[in-house]
Amino acid sequence: MSNAIRVGIVGTQFMGRARSNAYQRVGTFFDVAPPVVRAACDVEPAGLTAFARRFGWQTTESSWEKLVQRDDIDLVDICTPNALHMPIAVAAAQAGKHVICEKPIAMNAGEARRMLDAARGANVRHMVAFNYRRVPALALARQMIEQGKIGRIFHFNAVYYQDWLVDPDFPYVWRHDKKAGGSGAHGDMNAHTVDLARFLVGEIESVCGAEEVFIKERRLPGGKGKGTVTADDALYFLARFREGALGTFLATRFASGRKNYLRLEIFGSEGSLIFNLERLNELEYYSRKDQGAEQGFRNIVVTESSHPYVNLWWPPGHIIGWEHTFIHEIGDLLTAIGKGRDVQPDFHDGWRCQQVLDAAAQSAAEQRWVHLKLEV
Amino acid sequence: MSNAIRVGIVGTQFMGRARSNAYQRVGTFFDVAPPVVRAACDVEPAGLTAFARRFGWQTTESSWEKLVQRDDIDLVDICTPNALHMPIAVAAAQAGKHVICEKPIAMNAGEARRMLDAARGANVRHMVAFNYRRVPALALARQMIEQGKIGRIFHFNAVYYQDWLVDPDFPYVWRHDKKAGGSGAHGDMNAHTVDLARFLVGEIESVCGAEEVFIKERRLPGGKGKGTVTADDALYFLARFREGALGTFLATRFASGRKNYLRLEIFGSEGSLIFNLERLNELEYYSRKDQGAEQGFRNIVVTESSHPYVNLWWPPGHIIGWEHTFIHEIGDLLTAIGKGRDVQPDFHDGWRCQQVLDAAAQSAAEQRWVHLKLEV
Amino acid sequence: MSNAIRVGIVGTQFMGRARSNAYQRVGTFFDVAPPVVRAACDVEPAGLTAFARRFGWQTTESSWEKLVQRDDIDLVDICTPNALHMPIAVAAAQAGKHVICEKPIAMNAGEARRMLDAARGANVRHMVAFNYRRVPALALARQMIEQGKIGRIFHFNAVYYQDWLVDPDFPYVWRHDKKAGGSGAHGDMNAHTVDLARFLVGEIESVCGAEEVFIKERRLPGGKGKGTVTADDALYFLARFREGALGTFLATRFASGRKNYLRLEIFGSEGSLIFNLERLNELEYYSRKDQGAEQGFRNIVVTESSHPYVNLWWPPGHIIGWEHTFIHEIGDLLTAIGKGRDVQPDFHDGWRCQQVLDAAAQSAAEQRWVHLKLEV
Amino acid sequence: MSNAIRVGIVGTQFMGRARSNAYQRVGTFFDVAPPVVRAACDVEPAGLTAFARRFGWQTTESSWEKLVQRDDIDLVDICTPNALHMPIAVAAAQAGKHVICEKPIAMNAGEARRMLDAARGANVRHMVAFNYRRVPALALARQMIEQGKIGRIFHFNAVYYQDWLVDPDFPYVWRHDKKAGGSGAHGDMNAHTVDLARFLVGEIESVCGAEEVFIKERRLPGGKGKGTVTADDALYFLARFREGALGTFLATRFASGRKNYLRLEIFGSEGSLIFNLERLNELEYYSRKDQGAEQGFRNIVVTESSHPYVNLWWPPGHIIGWEHTFIHEIGDLLTAIGKGRDVQPDFHDGWRCQQVLDAAAQSAAEQRWVHLKLEV
Repeated sequence: MSNAIRVGIVGTQFMGRARSNAYQRVGTFFDVAPPVVRAACDVEPAGLTAFARRFGWQTTESSWEKLVQRDDIDLVDICTPNALHMPIAVAAAQAGKHVICEKPIAMNAGEARRMLDAARGANVRHMVAFNYRRVPALALARQMIEQGKIGRIFHFNAVYYQDWLVDPDFPYVWRHDKKAGGSGAHGDMNAHTVDLARFLVGEIESVCGAEEVFIKERRLPGGKGKGTVTADDALYFLARFREGALGTFLATRFASGRKNYLRLEIFGSEGSLIFNLERLNELEYYSRKDQGAEQGFRNIVVTESSHPYVNLWWPPGHIIGWEHTFIHEIGDLLTAIGKGRDVQPDFHDGWRCQQVLDAAAQSAAEQRWVHLKLEV
Repeated sequence: MSNAIRVGIVGTQFMGRARSNAYQRVGTFFDVAPPVVRAACDVEPAGLTAFARRFGWQTTESSWEKLVQRDDIDLVDICTPNALHMPIAVAAAQAGKHVICEKPIAMNAGEARRMLDAARGANVRHMVAFNYRRVPALALARQMIEQGKIGRIFHFNAVYYQDWLVDPDFPYVWRHDKKAGGSGAHGDMNAHTVDLARFLVGEIESVCGAEEVFIKERRLPGGKGKGTVTADDALYFLARFREGALGTFLATRFASGRKNYLRLEIFGSEGSLIFNLERLNELEYYSRKDQGAEQGFRNIVVTESSHPYVNLWWPPGHIIGWEHTFIHEIGDLLTAIGKGRDVQPDFHDGWRCQQVLDAAAQSAAEQRWVHLKLEV
Repeated sequence: MSNAIRVGIVGTQFMGRARSNAYQRVGTFFDVAPPVVRAACDVEPAGLTAFARRFGWQTTESSWEKLVQRDDIDLVDICTPNALHMPIAVAAAQAGKHVICEKPIAMNAGEARRMLDAARGANVRHMVAFNYRRVPALALARQMIEQGKIGRIFHFNAVYYQDWLVDPDFPYVWRHDKKAGGSGAHGDMNAHTVDLARFLVGEIESVCGAEEVFIKERRLPGGKGKGTVTADDALYFLARFREGALGTFLATRFASGRKNYLRLEIFGSEGSLIFNLERLNELEYYSRKDQGAEQGFRNIVVTESSHPYVNLWWPPGHIIGWEHTFIHEIGDLLTAIGKGRDVQPDFHDGWRCQQVLDAAAQSAAEQRWVHLKLEV
Repeated sequence: MSNAIRVGIVGTQFMGRARSNAYQRVGTFFDVAPPVVRAACDVEPAGLTAFARRFGWQTTESSWEKLVQRDDIDLVDICTPNALHMPIAVAAAQAGKHVICEKPIAMNAGEARRMLDAARGANVRHMVAFNYRRVPALALARQMIEQGKIGRIFHFNAVYYQDWLVDPDFPYVWRHDKKAGGSGAHGDMNAHTVDLARFLVGEIESVCGAEEVFIKERRLPGGKGKGTVTADDALYFLARFREGALGTFLATRFASGRKNYLRLEIFGSEGSLIFNLERLNELEYYSRKDQGAEQGFRNIVVTESSHPYVNLWWPPGHIIGWEHTFIHEIGDLLTAIGKGRDVQPDFHDGWRCQQVLDAAAQSAAEQRWVHLKLEV
């Protein structure tokens, strides 16, 4: 166990739980030493204790500044609100820790770049938790695209729909404040689809978007009046990819009936791929090379041992869930750390994604197209 | 126009309307002379007049006996309740008329055999209106099976679900009386799926079924008390095919939410086919020959000009409806008559199907397996 | 038959055939006098004769100028390439004929306005053939929206996908020439979805689009070298509706595997609706008023007699096809003419739609948002 | 931790792994003390060591007879081939251990009854691992049925399709030997659907089945010639329920393209429910009480905190996998043990299910209906 990686986590909410679960399980299913879940950190002490007990974190810290300095930690996992990503990541890297950071990487591309520079300067491993790259169906999609199965890509159309803000009684929370979160649906949801676009298609060159706040005020918790919503309820944008494809990205929390519906449609010269996160064990594939009268979208049930990551799990037809993508992510990260290798998506990917998000937000604010600079 | 076929129809209800529509349209889409719709016959004069006017029937008759003797009729189309199929068909054939008969062909296999013998004896063309053979997707399925696309067939599982009898207030009609209809769901619905089984897989050798009447009494129309339901609400049966496949046939009018849901699943050594009548422009196909990681059920949208019958209609993706199967059927029938050729499904098919239906009904009544004799 | 409307049609290609079919059938299914299909017109004589014979057109004309002046014609049906819509419609209206015109109504909004003014000035009935308004599922969607079933609308997202231009060997045709067609996928496909947006949601206020030609040159027919493609292969745009909804419109002929795939997603404060043209007998509906644990998208099979237009056809579960929308359209038009009433969508709708299309094309060309003026 | 339950497991293959995973995770997600995974047992030492290390089993045993006698074990988990279920369960119960046993409970109903009697006699908790009762969608289905949402049930139609035996090169294994496994597809797959039928509908009264071996001989491993397949490749049966419903059960390993496809269709007087294991986070529901024109099958995404078990996991739309059903099962079992309560499905359920399976196998062998005795 001497090579077991020791983890410190900051943030104990939804992502903190999901990642804790991954640390617990990764040793059973990946060929890595089970990580030591050394320290959990949160500013709120009550929840922290329960969280640590539930997920087996050995110690707790109330200050992330202390956590990143501890000698007994190799990897810092950042699951905080967005505004804290940059300071924690920079401090952790400077303290020589490897870092995994929840998405979106930062409040803006400038912060993201600082994180990237810090991590590179400290020569630590760095990862952004775009877990959907490790859905087996999407890892398979990437393989198939690399093999030329769908040829030259013409279109990448992504929607990400949720509906939890349709309820006008849903209270004002930090996510409604642009200053606290950077953006609303955009940073949270388009971050995922932009990363998948880069993963599957390539770099985005220009964008033009529109944003909307459908419910302008929401009641403050505790009966203290109303707060003004400044973060977008929905942000849509058009995009052009460097290699010539047209793209669309639609993120909204006002899509009644859709809970966590991320759907991709990718159309190419040789075929097409379609994916839906609510049926994440499936990938639709159309091949123009199938015999004429027999062409059609195939529904591939991505549960064969020949599919990415599936050999870790169960026999064909026994589906996995959303949380498994975290185990894949952590498994690959720990493997990379153990072998001294880089892992994707890293802070460079996070920075690039953030550039696109910033440009899209700017284009929406200024109601015009924004062109990205794609220097390295 | 001298070679235009002159039609007399008996029965003006649902099937009469659907077939009239086909006669109207077939000349436009098939390479046949438009038929002359000479005479329509029904025992009820009021509805008959309106029917004839609506669908352009040139004359009317109140007696089928007269209609089948008319010199100006070449083809008799039987759309009556089942009990009249045999007498009309035999009389028409003996009068030298070609005959198309609604399914099920007769009240029992003995009647069906008489019809077959009469038609053969008179050397006329004869057809049973199993229109689903001419759904493009099912005609394609037949082609693919003949080409070996799914190999040796292991399973043919058919369901035919409707729900119009779930309503306990639905009144007693002739279809509830076994004497009038021969059977209930069984003859009406299993007739279709048994014919498709024979079309796609082959002859059935033995059967074992169970039937049920869920609502035993229904009110008579006109407030005259209640009638006892004797015809089956549902009849299910297992079957063995001569070539070794196992089959199931489920027909019910008590499947809440299913309106006209005929679904086939055919599993073979090289692949599988799935069809659903409520999406009749689609055929699902699985090929074991697809590359391993990319296998999946393909949804073929059967609207390409390379698909059976589709070249008669519209460009790809422009779907056709249920009624088009009647036009295909009548088009093929008129073509066959014109060329002096046989057409399938004929009275032999109707007789064979009826043998299976009779055996299944017997097996349900006697609660035992019944083996069919497959002599010709 | 004295009140039978006498029709003259210009154009004998795909739309000419589809509309001819509708004239043939409408008298059978609608309560209108069967129209007299008096004259068909096309510049190419050979095809014209075959067309007229097939669909029963009583006479032919080689010049639309003559056709619109004929005394024995009440209604002119324009199925020509787009560039001829305006001159024919104006001439026909000025000659006192009622007019139905294929979509898009014209080459630009200016032409459309001339058509509208001419029709109003002549006090004739006028219709634009946006047939999808009369898909029963979409007519039902409109009813449900009017009844408040989905509440305030937040999002209208439309895609229209085809794939017939993915093939690089597909030759250069008039549709590739912006001068001949006005635009490519945009005018042909977005015209439909913009009209549906107006039908279901309301007026569009501003748009911002992007267009692309993926294959810049195509071989000319007859081996005469190559032609430069000027009409868009794809045109996408964002839109804002007057009532506050965000919209997207994606039209492309480069969506491998999609043949005629028009999909709408409409999200509102009380529920949502989803429609897919390749399954045009179905409508998905989500209601936030369903009991909590039982909420979900319902798949309504729109084949009940209580659904719009369905009482004209067959029993529940017996689906209709694409062509039936033309019969509904012609049935409503003939009824309106007979009763001296207006019918929608009329040239005002066509003009409004064209304004949106023009603005979207301009926004794509100039890479900026374009705001519409919504005066009457 | 003094109340932590100490587990001994027998069998280290697929089910052993799935259950080990559940023991590892249950403490994190359920409000139970994490179990102590004390001892793992298998006759093959090499695999046992690796298994124990991977899943944290503290000690190993090579003999189940020793394991069941150990003082430091409270609960015995039986994951062996079927022939060992009875002897181990009886011995464990007699030694005062609680017992969970993989399905089917035994080789026949006589064995099952001995197990039930032993467990009752020893007053221990007993469970059969019919994990699909604890798929949230099926637990919800049960709730809805109990609430009368679908009324009187007319039909329960179940299919369970796999395809791993279609490959003629798949070698002869113990599962092909009726003596070793009791049956083939039948005991393995129909066991699940029969249990679900009892869970959702009620007791089965009579059955009639047909079985088939499609590939009669398979090569023995190690190139030692061929073995004769005696266990069924497929077994289908009709059933009648005590409360009047008709049922069908189809199990086959020859359904090309279906990997682990268990589909239920339940039709009742007020509505219907449909479930598909490959999309286990969804439940389709049709209600006859929905307003007329808006009726349709709803697709309930069963990921709301109001749905059974879901509050243990993630927010709406974040799906769970097949393995989670084991965690639910073990969570409920440990809770029941802790509280001294019974838990379902118990050995009584296993015995009842086995009676049905035995009757169906007998009916297939004797080609006749078999009626069950439903005494307690």
